Amino acid sequence: MIIDCHGHYTTAPKALEDWRNRQIAGIKDPALMSKAGELKISDDELRESIEKNQLRLMNERGSDLTIFSPRASFMAHHIGDFAVSSTWAAICNELCFRVSQLFPRHFIPAAMLPQSPGVDPATCIPELVKCVEQYGNVGINLNPDPSGGHWTSPPLTDRHWYPIYEKMVEYDIPAMVHVSTSCNDCFHTTGAHYLNADTTAFMQCLTGDLFNDFPTLRFIIPHGGGAVPYHWGRFRGLAQELKKPLLKDHLLNNIFFDTCVYHQPGIDLLTQVIPLKNILFASEMIGAVRGIDPETGHYYDDTKRYIEASSIVVGDDRHQIYEGNARRVFPRLDAALKKQGR
Amino acid sequence: MIIDCHGHYTTAPKALEDWRNRQIAGIKDPALMSKAGELKISDDELRESIEKNQLRLMNERGSDLTIFSPRASFMAHHIGDFAVSSTWAAICNELCFRVSQLFPRHFIPAAMLPQSPGVDPATCIPELVKCVEQYGNVGINLNPDPSGGHWTSPPLTDRHWYPIYEKMVEYDIPAMVHVSTSCNDCFHTTGAHYLNADTTAFMQCLTGDLFNDFPTLRFIIPHGGGAVPYHWGRFRGLAQELKKPLLKDHLLNNIFFDTCVYHQPGIDLLTQVIPLKNILFASEMIGAVRGIDPETGHYYDDTKRYIEASSIVVGDDRHQIYEGNARRVFPRLDAALKKQGR
Repeated sequence: MIIDCHGHYTTAPKALEDWRNRQIAGIKDPALMSKAGELKISDDELRESIEKNQLRLMNERGSDLTIFSPRASFMAHHIGDFAVSSTWAAICNELCFRVSQLFPRHFIPAAMLPQSPGVDPATCIPELVKCVEQYGNVGINLNPDPSGGHWTSPPLTDRHWYPIYEKMVEYDIPAMVHVSTSCNDCFHTTGAHYLNADTTAFMQCLTGDLFNDFPTLRFIIPHGGGAVPYHWGRFRGLAQELKKPLLKDHLLNNIFFDTCVYHQPGIDLLTQVIPLKNILFASEMIGAVRGIDPETGHYYDDTKRYIEASSIVVGDDRHQIYEGNARRVFPRLDAALKKQGR
Repeated sequence: MIIDCHGHYTTAPKALEDWRNRQIAGIKDPALMSKAGELKISDDELRESIEKNQLRLMNERGSDLTIFSPRASFMAHHIGDFAVSSTWAAICNELCFRVSQLFPRHFIPAAMLPQSPGVDPATCIPELVKCVEQYGNVGINLNPDPSGGHWTSPPLTDRHWYPIYEKMVEYDIPAMVHVSTSCNDCFHTTGAHYLNADTTAFMQCLTGDLFNDFPTLRFIIPHGGGAVPYHWGRFRGLAQELKKPLLKDHLLNNIFFDTCVYHQPGIDLLTQVIPLKNILFASEMIGAVRGIDPETGHYYDDTKRYIEASSIVVGDDRHQIYEGNARRVFPRLDAALKKQGR
């Protein structure tokens, strides 16, 4: 079985974006503000948006199940206040839940949180509880920079974030550490901000001792861990300078990397450097890089091809990356699959 | 001949730091402000600081010449105003010049600029001119984020930076794009901010068309290009989405990467993915990662070992990375070496 741990609902019907645009207009002019109940998307529309896109590609490429969360770049936590984020998160999470109900063998939801810059993350708990308890979400996306590229929140090791972590530990769910759109002109969203955030989050954890306080807390660092595996020697050396334990003991019981690296040499490095138990298959399809690589004739984000072509990952190792690790890191996914007899 | 294109004067006598601390104290209380003339460091002190450190390691490891610039993390352009940066840059550049005079076969200077957040980069020109014309500097370090992790300057493709570029083109000198200390708690300086800046700078160039305006402008992206080579497929794909030419045409006549990647798999990926004409040997020694890698028994930053052990870079390719590319990217270095009969 092949589980893609990183998919976003990037192909939602246009009504969603229209609703969001009215909501954003409503921040300045409350008369224009859209209400949650005004969004009407039928099951048929949802079905079509998935069947023609993600599900089609999953079938073509041969993956079985996607952990599916709202579109990352649309979270845009920097827009408006907590109320705006709260309504928006509820709507987006409901749509992913509905997709998971329509395609229960192919999609299982992960939640976005109603984060807002400068607002206590504890305010996100009710949405998180609803998503886990009522919607069957198996993980969350945690944005370490709700300001959208201004980095005004404390590091992930700060107690600021502990209310979220306590709930994550209680539910035994992991978080993918995933930023959203950059509103800082310096950072291209998917070409700089995403990768920078991945590197930043890892280094925040390296300098701190978060996992002493939360030994079972689990983070997935997406996009192959940003710059981390490529600079693994640097990070091992920095940990040494900072008198931290070896990274395998200090961080690798709690931090995992996905395989959203869009060429063979990158996947080869990732799988060579990072223990296989810490690597989860993912494509972030349909996402930032949608084209076909002229050097291979295949989609850049068809990451399964790189795993299949790997001489490093073979036999049972492949199973670990495709399925075993995801079941271990997302215990609620494992439980849901077992309920389905899978 | 082996040229290390990325060395900083990290081992300057303590008097320099003391002077800087008095300067910083003087920002709040002008009575405490240190004056440039108060810094006294003898040639013997300079000699000792180099012979015991960089030069010793260069001899041990077998590199011949270092392009030597002021300590990157000490530039701290975010501290004080332009006058503070200006005095500080002049002092630091003078020390590197003196080192180059004391060890003319081993060190050649590159300049830091007196950047200051919110200040027109044109104000840096006089220091740049002095460093090139009087001190024989062969390149500069350009900080794309003088705010120190708040990223308040426009992207490198903005006309804001053009006065520097015009002077670079006139002198035919390249810039290493190198940030300084992060004063943003989110970013560890050498573990996140440096790598993020490398990725960010590359992506800024990718989205823009800077090299149409300056076809001969050259940037070195340090630390192996941040996350870029590891995600080369992603960047190729993003360029494609943005309807840009192939990266080799769009950027690789102007952008170069150094080899400050501190483990074998990283160097292997770099040399496999990036054309060899775009890779310049460097160690950033003595820098962020000073320890010995327990997995190899050698210094993490002894990057020559990784090149020597490479099965990808052999024969004349090695010469290109060690010497040929540096002579091409730094024409004033080449001219200075030829004057020495090298």
